[in-house]
Amino acid sequence: MPKKKSGGRPARKAGREGPVVGRIVSEARDVEEKIAKGKKPALRFPVRSLQNVSYESQKGFFEIRGRTKERTLTVNTVKTFAQTLRMMALSKELVETDDIATKREAYYVSKNWGDARFAEQPESDTVIEDVEALFRVNREQLGFVPEEKGGDVAGELVVIDRDTETGQELKIDCRKFGSGAYSIPISVEHLGFETRARFILVIETAGMFQRLVKHNYWKKASCILVSMGGVPTRACRRFIRRLADSKKLPVYVFVDGDPYGITNIYRTLKVGSGNAAHLNEYFCVPQARFLGITPQDIVDYKLPTHPLKDVDIKRAKDALKNDPFILHHKPWQRAIQQLVQMGVRAEQQALAKHGLNYVIDEYLPQKIGHPERFLP
Amino acid sequence: MPKKKSGGRPARKAGREGPVVGRIVSEARDVEEKIAKGKKPALRFPVRSLQNVSYESQKGFFEIRGRTKERTLTVNTVKTFAQTLRMMALSKELVETDDIATKREAYYVSKNWGDARFAEQPESDTVIEDVEALFRVNREQLGFVPEEKGGDVAGELVVIDRDTETGQELKIDCRKFGSGAYSIPISVEHLGFETRARFILVIETAGMFQRLVKHNYWKKASCILVSMGGVPTRACRRFIRRLADSKKLPVYVFVDGDPYGITNIYRTLKVGSGNAAHLNEYFCVPQARFLGITPQDIVDYKLPTHPLKDVDIKRAKDALKNDPFILHHKPWQRAIQQLVQMGVRAEQQALAKHGLNYVIDEYLPQKIGHPERFLP
Repeated sequence: MPKKKSGGRPARKAGREGPVVGRIVSEARDVEEKIAKGKKPALRFPVRSLQNVSYESQKGFFEIRGRTKERTLTVNTVKTFAQTLRMMALSKELVETDDIATKREAYYVSKNWGDARFAEQPESDTVIEDVEALFRVNREQLGFVPEEKGGDVAGELVVIDRDTETGQELKIDCRKFGSGAYSIPISVEHLGFETRARFILVIETAGMFQRLVKHNYWKKASCILVSMGGVPTRACRRFIRRLADSKKLPVYVFVDGDPYGITNIYRTLKVGSGNAAHLNEYFCVPQARFLGITPQDIVDYKLPTHPLKDVDIKRAKDALKNDPFILHHKPWQRAIQQLVQMGVRAEQQALAKHGLNYVIDEYLPQKIGHPERFLP
Repeated sequence: MPKKKSGGRPARKAGREGPVVGRIVSEARDVEEKIAKGKKPALRFPVRSLQNVSYESQKGFFEIRGRTKERTLTVNTVKTFAQTLRMMALSKELVETDDIATKREAYYVSKNWGDARFAEQPESDTVIEDVEALFRVNREQLGFVPEEKGGDVAGELVVIDRDTETGQELKIDCRKFGSGAYSIPISVEHLGFETRARFILVIETAGMFQRLVKHNYWKKASCILVSMGGVPTRACRRFIRRLADSKKLPVYVFVDGDPYGITNIYRTLKVGSGNAAHLNEYFCVPQARFLGITPQDIVDYKLPTHPLKDVDIKRAKDALKNDPFILHHKPWQRAIQQLVQMGVRAEQQALAKHGLNYVIDEYLPQKIGHPERFLP
């Protein structure tokens, strides 16, 4: 095979170039013109911290406020400034050639940037996040993708993708994976969807997902099953969001009944996280509702429990005190207080006490009959 | 929906009942007859520890030796004895109804066993492993499945599964998932395969997998890509093993060039692990060969490196001293010694220094042209 660097690959019609390349070029031109006029060039980034964030339930996500910081080219900032411009150039190349780079790969690519190379990956990650915030787009739109995979899907859904080489449309029928599933790719911006499902059921554990797949639960309930495998990755959140938006589907979330399931997994899925607030607009699922396991389920379904650990109690108390999402929703405050008072937690799989398929035959049908009772 | 416990579901023709149910019944009958005669019933298990294990490269896996322990019904063992019989009964029910239970679910099911219920999950896990060893079959054949999902697949492969309800054959074409992938189910015993691939390429990281998928590497190289996402799960190892056996395919493994990649990820994939020796026969991939990153690759490809951490050095020295697999293979001893001497490690993605797609255009073709040079 001929020796080619990524830049040497022919550009493919990906429909992804859109406005990003234009904005990179325009920002770079400003810098160039300032320099040509003998002035100091500057780049302006939004401040990325919880102090520069607000929450409104109509918007549905932690939103970044107006505060910005400026990076002016000086003797002290020259290296970071050069690295930022280099990273913008890499992004432009990625988008133009329809290629991708993980944050890790971007770090290694910099090893050929001479004095502008990064010594450690956290430095290059910060610059990628700066560029992301600068253009107010998500990293995937700049061609940078996460290391981690997305999550699994089965059920009443056809995903529309394309062959990257031929551009040919591919229809991926998630009803026809048998006991397997469709694995969400790292970047999902280009996917289309066809579905007649009534809702999306998002599940915490791979074990519970496998049970529902094995028994074709999605067929009975006419739904799409998504397995998060713990705290959902960006790709998984973005996939659910794009699917729910484009097909106007409600999203029901089925996780363990413990502070981690509520304040980490569910909260992150629904409104995003605090330390990536410039991205939550893309990576939140505001239509998500909490099906269970609720603290009241533990009582109603007489579930076997485990005592709350110290870390659970700390997490719950922190959320009651500091989490803007919990502070916004009274029903959540009551539910978390109830959990702390009971002093126990229960897992999704605790329903197996009543028989392995009680979850399919009783619990889920009872719950899904009354979405108005779901926690917000 | 009518109230049904898992036992109430109609048995489906799964071809899985095979000899397992018969052997459970026969073992249970022995116990019953002993009791009827007024004798003490006993169950005999192989001892599961590294001291009861041997390694021969022709066999290719850590094999359990002949030592056994006997569990006789006495006042002291009555609870464990009852739990073992109960677990055998649950397994029989699972196999007969073609259902599955995670180890976690099995633990919760026991909450309805009265005095035979388990207090903590490690207790029920041990009993499941005892039953597994008793019948010398893997847990999946008893209907018990792991919590964790399997791994991702893309490329020159059609997986044959069936609809669990209708029994209808499903052909899952792994060439047609675009940027997505086929997610390996938790249990893979029932899958069939069609392929014209030349080899299976097994990859450590989701990021590298995504790059090879994105650029249709599998088409150029006519291969099947499998992403392990770190240390491979049982389902992932079993999937590769069954695929490689049934289609007589070589297996090339592409992981980070560090002691963890070699002695944890690769070694576990190839010969299994020490603490589950009664299972390695099913969960090893003896045909696996180590493509890279080798210590010599770090030199030959001038890769950017990180210094070995203390834990890396400890892991390497432990392997040189105690690991029967490494002790068996001189080339591995030399390679690990070389790594320790250089004092550095290199990741798969370090190849990005030479351009993002250097791995596709140069590294992999050069390597795969000479499988005879691969480490064993």
